[in-house]
Amino acid sequence: MKLVDQAVSSAVEAHKKRALGSRANRVALLNGLADALDATAAELIAIADSETHLGVPRLTGEVARTGFQLRMFADLVSQGQLDSVLVNPAVAGPPPVGHPALIRDYESLGPVAMFSASNFPFAFSVLGGDTASALAAGCPVVVKGHPGHPKLTERTVEMAQSVVAAQGLHPGVFGLVTGEGVEVGQSLVDHPQIAAVAFTGSVHGGLALWARCNARPRPIPFFGELGSINPIVALEAALEKDSQALAETLAGSITLGCGQFCTSPGIVFLPSGALGDQFAVQLKAALAKASTHAMLHQGIQAQYDKRISQVRAAGVQTLVEPRDGCQAYVAQTNLATFMASKTLQEEVFGSACLLVQVDSADQVCQGLHAVGGSLTVTLWGADSPTNGVDQILRVARQIAGRVLFASVPTGVAVAAGQHHGGPFPSSTMPSTTSVGPDAMMRFLRPVCLQDAPQWVQESLHA
Amino acid sequence: MKLVDQAVSSAVEAHKKRALGSRANRVALLNGLADALDATAAELIAIADSETHLGVPRLTGEVARTGFQLRMFADLVSQGQLDSVLVNPAVAGPPPVGHPALIRDYESLGPVAMFSASNFPFAFSVLGGDTASALAAGCPVVVKGHPGHPKLTERTVEMAQSVVAAQGLHPGVFGLVTGEGVEVGQSLVDHPQIAAVAFTGSVHGGLALWARCNARPRPIPFFGELGSINPIVALEAALEKDSQALAETLAGSITLGCGQFCTSPGIVFLPSGALGDQFAVQLKAALAKASTHAMLHQGIQAQYDKRISQVRAAGVQTLVEPRDGCQAYVAQTNLATFMASKTLQEEVFGSACLLVQVDSADQVCQGLHAVGGSLTVTLWGADSPTNGVDQILRVARQIAGRVLFASVPTGVAVAAGQHHGGPFPSSTMPSTTSVGPDAMMRFLRPVCLQDAPQWVQESLHA
Repeated sequence: MKLVDQAVSSAVEAHKKRALGSRANRVALLNGLADALDATAAELIAIADSETHLGVPRLTGEVARTGFQLRMFADLVSQGQLDSVLVNPAVAGPPPVGHPALIRDYESLGPVAMFSASNFPFAFSVLGGDTASALAAGCPVVVKGHPGHPKLTERTVEMAQSVVAAQGLHPGVFGLVTGEGVEVGQSLVDHPQIAAVAFTGSVHGGLALWARCNARPRPIPFFGELGSINPIVALEAALEKDSQALAETLAGSITLGCGQFCTSPGIVFLPSGALGDQFAVQLKAALAKASTHAMLHQGIQAQYDKRISQVRAAGVQTLVEPRDGCQAYVAQTNLATFMASKTLQEEVFGSACLLVQVDSADQVCQGLHAVGGSLTVTLWGADSPTNGVDQILRVARQIAGRVLFASVPTGVAVAAGQHHGGPFPSSTMPSTTSVGPDAMMRFLRPVCLQDAPQWVQESLHA
Repeated sequence: MKLVDQAVSSAVEAHKKRALGSRANRVALLNGLADALDATAAELIAIADSETHLGVPRLTGEVARTGFQLRMFADLVSQGQLDSVLVNPAVAGPPPVGHPALIRDYESLGPVAMFSASNFPFAFSVLGGDTASALAAGCPVVVKGHPGHPKLTERTVEMAQSVVAAQGLHPGVFGLVTGEGVEVGQSLVDHPQIAAVAFTGSVHGGLALWARCNARPRPIPFFGELGSINPIVALEAALEKDSQALAETLAGSITLGCGQFCTSPGIVFLPSGALGDQFAVQLKAALAKASTHAMLHQGIQAQYDKRISQVRAAGVQTLVEPRDGCQAYVAQTNLATFMASKTLQEEVFGSACLLVQVDSADQVCQGLHAVGGSLTVTLWGADSPTNGVDQILRVARQIAGRVLFASVPTGVAVAAGQHHGGPFPSSTMPSTTSVGPDAMMRFLRPVCLQDAPQWVQESLHA
């Protein structure tokens, strides 16, 4: 495919010429992109709102996060701590104790194919976390624009390319390919000179691209974030204390962004009996007062409608129906029905939540195991390790990348302690994170230098 | 498959009961295994020699390395630095600057399927680096024994299980499955409760198992080391100074262990002209004095014979023929022939080396790119960044996990600066290493704890 070839060739050329070889270049580029984003924010937000329906307040917050991320990676590159050189001097004598002088450095993987997400037109799109972390790692980026926000993509790329030009960098450090169908993306991940892929999107699309990465003559890493159910475990201790407030917080989290978040809560394990019943009533009341905006595009709406009808058909009791002004669906079922239904154990992308009644910590653990990999598990009421709470925490840690003990999973902090990933399908590389400083390390690979001469050692600290 | 089910179920049970949950347990187990290995070394080495033909001196060194690795991981677990908790206190205010309290801890992946290699009956087998690093990470291990050394496997497992029993640990922390065909291994990686796979072996076998890992309803990480060509670049500067000594060192590396090492040098890029010709003559003379032992088993011998005949048929000039007492094959060709032949660009497992004549640094770089992913690249004569040496180093770093500036790639130091991995096929996870302390991190996954209550925080430092 000609456009893909051109974009990748230019990226390869930029990498060969070490356009991002110096830390100073990377720092300047990342800060320059953040500044340009700030300067064009009002214009970009207006375009984004018209294309995504996400609303100005949310999009304004997202632009702030995106700029914050770019500057965070600039600081990390500048400090050089995460990817610092490890010097391991020679030890005299025979092996295994004795060994030659070793230095562990890091090498940029090379041109990265970055697939924009529809649900974060800034923070997981053209200049989002994947792009920022790949550039920070010294990798040129070829963006696959999302067809859900084409004008925003075009305008953001234009702005980014003018920053690249103004800084005198090779234009290949930042390229774009677009296309409605799947062919452009396929051709991009198949390209022999693409070194890694970053993807945020559906299980279906992600699996298809991942399979292509692995089927290449030389397979490459695929960093995919494909889906997550984000179960909440509402323990009696929490409902006894805070039932009303938690129901309201949950209603807000379910409807936020019309549920179009990777961290939207899809399941709540609720104690059967009076406390759980009361919570369900409170949640219903809170949702009666909530509102949502239109979904991102018709395809997502159609998929949501389809999944809701599948859930309805799986033997659940519907508690909240989507209505004009608030498209949220809530149903309730027991653990046995949940355990027996693959449909109920899979993500519904959009505002939808299933309340699953449980009688014991053992049942919670069964339910969590059935969910499998998740970006998050939230435990409400785990203030002490009694009544099987420690057992539930243990299972939560096994299936999730983040365990919350308060609040709701929506809202992902961009901070050093963050881990945004987890067992499949939440990540195809569960030990990596797509949010926070360590996201940069996805695009670097250790290289050991054995008996390096003086000039090589000096070049590492330049 | 019943045996697989039993072994995995026992491992799951051990993991559930947190048999390796405490650092003290892991330290004691790793040190106990090392002590038991030392105590039974003579007996095990005799069995290994009869099954592998590798010879007592080499096997004695390998046992020492294996014990060293077990103790190194015990020390790492005891120190707790690699997998230490990162505390990221709450920051007040709205996002993106403000965020809740985050703690990044690590979680053991769960039961690991470990495929023994034939060529390292100790260091990459039952108690080898993969087992040691997985146990260090708190993961029970189910070993797939290699059919090339069944008695050694049985005796080593017996010894290891008695250590497990003596320490009062759940027997599931260390299990074994065996079988001649591929079915046992397939059934092991397919098992829904296996959490990760470690594999050292052929590209063919590794790709098949990796595909199964990815085709599971819930894909799991596959840490495979599948093959490597380990090119050496002999620059004129080195040949002018040390030609004779380098030829002798290379002859030793080619014939070491009958070439059955992942780091055996398969290609030497040699300057065309008098210096290169002289080196070829010296290498031939050195190999005339060398000797090799029998290969590991008939299958490997047959594959070696087949590959040598493919290389012969690819338009090369044979310089050294396998002979009684020294099965080493050396051929010479020019860059054009090398670039045009996939056969010449693929690994020959065994003592075989192809000399490729080059005229410039550019030609070296072309040749290295054709090799693609490799565990190592060795640069002889790179003492200064002149004559395109810096350009060659840059390409070497792009294709390899380790770049050597002296000596030969055989002999892998077990040390903090090591990186034993690299782009495919040398590793299926190029950012991970299978040798050295960081090997442990393959079997741990970060978990973020958000707003963790006091009891959870205290349990992390217990």
